[in-house]
Amino acid sequence: MKAARFHGRGDIRIDDIPEPATRPGTVKVEVEWCGICGTDLHEYLEGPIFASTTDAPHPLTGESIPIPLGHEFAGVVRELGEGVTDLRVGDRVVVEPYIVCGRCDACDQGRYNVCQSLGFVGLSGGGGGFSRFVVAQRRWIHPLGALGTDIGALVEPLAVAYHAVRLSGAEPGHTATVFGAGPIGLVTTAALRAAGVEQIFVVEPAEVRKAKAHVAGADEVLDPSTVDVPAAVAELTKGRGADVTFECAGIDAVLKAAIRSTRAGGTCVNVAIWGHEASVALNDLVFREVNVLGSLAYAGDHPATIAMIADGKVDPYQFITGRIGLDDIVTRGFDELIGNKEENVKILVSPAE
Amino acid sequence: MKAARFHGRGDIRIDDIPEPATRPGTVKVEVEWCGICGTDLHEYLEGPIFASTTDAPHPLTGESIPIPLGHEFAGVVRELGEGVTDLRVGDRVVVEPYIVCGRCDACDQGRYNVCQSLGFVGLSGGGGGFSRFVVAQRRWIHPLGALGTDIGALVEPLAVAYHAVRLSGAEPGHTATVFGAGPIGLVTTAALRAAGVEQIFVVEPAEVRKAKAHVAGADEVLDPSTVDVPAAVAELTKGRGADVTFECAGIDAVLKAAIRSTRAGGTCVNVAIWGHEASVALNDLVFREVNVLGSLAYAGDHPATIAMIADGKVDPYQFITGRIGLDDIVTRGFDELIGNKEENVKILVSPAE
Repeated sequence: MKAARFHGRGDIRIDDIPEPATRPGTVKVEVEWCGICGTDLHEYLEGPIFASTTDAPHPLTGESIPIPLGHEFAGVVRELGEGVTDLRVGDRVVVEPYIVCGRCDACDQGRYNVCQSLGFVGLSGGGGGFSRFVVAQRRWIHPLGALGTDIGALVEPLAVAYHAVRLSGAEPGHTATVFGAGPIGLVTTAALRAAGVEQIFVVEPAEVRKAKAHVAGADEVLDPSTVDVPAAVAELTKGRGADVTFECAGIDAVLKAAIRSTRAGGTCVNVAIWGHEASVALNDLVFREVNVLGSLAYAGDHPATIAMIADGKVDPYQFITGRIGLDDIVTRGFDELIGNKEENVKILVSPAE
Repeated sequence: MKAARFHGRGDIRIDDIPEPATRPGTVKVEVEWCGICGTDLHEYLEGPIFASTTDAPHPLTGESIPIPLGHEFAGVVRELGEGVTDLRVGDRVVVEPYIVCGRCDACDQGRYNVCQSLGFVGLSGGGGGFSRFVVAQRRWIHPLGALGTDIGALVEPLAVAYHAVRLSGAEPGHTATVFGAGPIGLVTTAALRAAGVEQIFVVEPAEVRKAKAHVAGADEVLDPSTVDVPAAVAELTKGRGADVTFECAGIDAVLKAAIRSTRAGGTCVNVAIWGHEASVALNDLVFREVNVLGSLAYAGDHPATIAMIADGKVDPYQFITGRIGLDDIVTRGFDELIGNKEENVKILVSPAE
C-alpha cells in the first residue's frame, strides 16, 4: 500500500510499504481521513524531532526513519483480531495514536500520555494515518457512532484541547484567555466554549486568524501588537485577570503575557511544545501565586471529546480548510500549510488508492 | 522608643521614634523577640527592594524610608483598642505582619498574601518588630497560648513553610524533595515532616547545612556537587520522582533539577524570591505534565502553624542560632548572618530598652 513516509528533514515521499496484518487483540482500520498536524510540519521543517532516527530506534517499536507519518486519523473497521468482540466490521472509528510501555509510573497512574517511552503511531513506527491501513490494539480504538470520519480526523486535535481545558480546571462562570489562534489555540477556544466557560478572550495579531477565533468562540480578540494584553484582560475581568490562560505559541513574550494575564491563584496551561528554553519571571508566579501547568496530548479524553462533538457543542467543520489526496500531500498539504499558515487550519488527506 | 530603621542600602540605624498609639480595633504588642529574615538581609545588601522609597511611598501606609524593620516578631499584649474584647493584656501573641487593601480580587478570595497593594509591617511602614512596641489590627494578632515568645518569633517563617506545603498538596505517603537548606528550606523540611510526608530528600552542598537538614527531618541529603540529583531522586523513589518538590534557592540550575525531580503529574513549588529571570525548559513541564506553583508567605496559616508547634510536630528551637539585643543588630545580627551564612539559621533580636 502507499504511505507518506518521513525520510528526514524536508524529505517526505510516497512509498510502497507492506499492508499491516491484523494480530490477536488488534483492529485493522481503513483510514478515510488523516489531518496534517503542526508536529508533522515541525518534523518536515526541523526534524527529526519526535521521529526516531536510525541510531536511536524507538524503544518500543524498534523502528526508525523512514517512518510513516499521520496521527490524526479516522476510518472504518475492516478486520477484527482474535478476541475483539465489541466492535463490528464497518464501524467508523478514530484511533488514539499511542505507543506506550504500560509499565512505568506514568502508565500506572493512567497518565500514559507522559509514558517514559512514549511514542506515537505516525511518528515512532506502528504505521501512520497517511496510508490506507493501520492496525492498532483494541484499547486505542474509539467508535465514532454516527459521526463521519472527516469529523473523526478532528477528534485528535480536539482531544488535545479537551485535555488542556480539563487540566486547567476551567468551569462555567470562569474567564479564559487563549494566547495564539493557530490550530491548537482555535481548538482550545472551541473546547472552552464547549465547557461553558463564561468569557473567552483570544490573543492573536493575524487578521485571518482573528476572524477564525471569533468563529471558534472568542468573545473578544485582543491584538498584542496594539494593546497591552495583561492590562486589557484585567479591564475585561473587573481587574481580576483570567481564571485560566493557555499558552499555545511557545514564545517567551507570550508566556510572560499569559502568566501576567492569569488571576491571582489561577492556572496558566502551557500547551505549546518549545523549541528553546524560555526566559521566565518566576516572581510573576510568586507574587500572584499563579500555577503553570504543562499539558501534553490527551489521556482518556477521546470518549468525552467524541461526545462533545456529537452533542453539538463544537462544530469541527470550521477547522477543515482543505481536503486532498495522498499524492498531493507535500505540495497541496505540507507546502500549502507552510506557505499559507494563517489561512489554513486543518488539511485532511485521503489515503485511498 | 528605639527602633532599627532601614535608611537605604547598607544603612540600618538605631533611631528614636515615637511610640505608636493604640487605636480602636487595634492591639498594642510589646515585642519580646523578632527574627532577622532573609528579606531583611536582601534589603540591607541590595535594597530598597520591598521597602518603599521616598518617591514611591507605600500606597496604604504612605510611608517610605527610613522605615522600621522586623516582621518575624512575637510579644505580649500591653493595651487593647476600643472594641477588642477577645484578648487580654498579658497574652503572648504573634503578629501576622500584613498591610493589605481588603478590596482587591486577591483579598476578596482570601488570598490577601497576594493583595495588589501588599505591604509588610517592618518593610512598608506601620512600625516594625525591631522596636519595643507595635500596634496592629486585631485580625493580625494570633494568641500563642502556652508557647513562649521566642518560639513565637519562629511562627512567621514556619507559616511560610506551612503555606508552601499546603499549596503543594503534600499528603502522608507522598515523597518530597527540598532544594536548598537555608532557613526557608529547613523550615519547609520541618513542615513536610510535620505533615507526615513519608520520605523527604533535601538537596544541599554545604556541610553545616546538610547536618541541619537531617535535624529538620530529611531522610536523605543529596549533594548536588557529587550526584545527579534527578537521577538520585528517581532511584530513591522507584523511578517515580518526588510527588512534590520545593525550590528554595532561586537559582536556574536548581529550578531545572527541581522540575526534573518531580513525578509525572506532580507539583514543584517555587518558594524562592528571584533576583533575575530564569531560563526554564518548558518542555520539562510538558512531557511529564508537571505543575510549577508560586507560593508567597502565608494567608490564614498562622493558627495551624501555631498548633503544629504546640502539638510537638516541629521543634522550633533547632532554628534559633543566636539571641542578641537591639543595639547589636547590625554587627551581631546582619553582619553575622552575612558573614557566617551556613552556621546561622535564625538570630532573634530583643528590642527591650
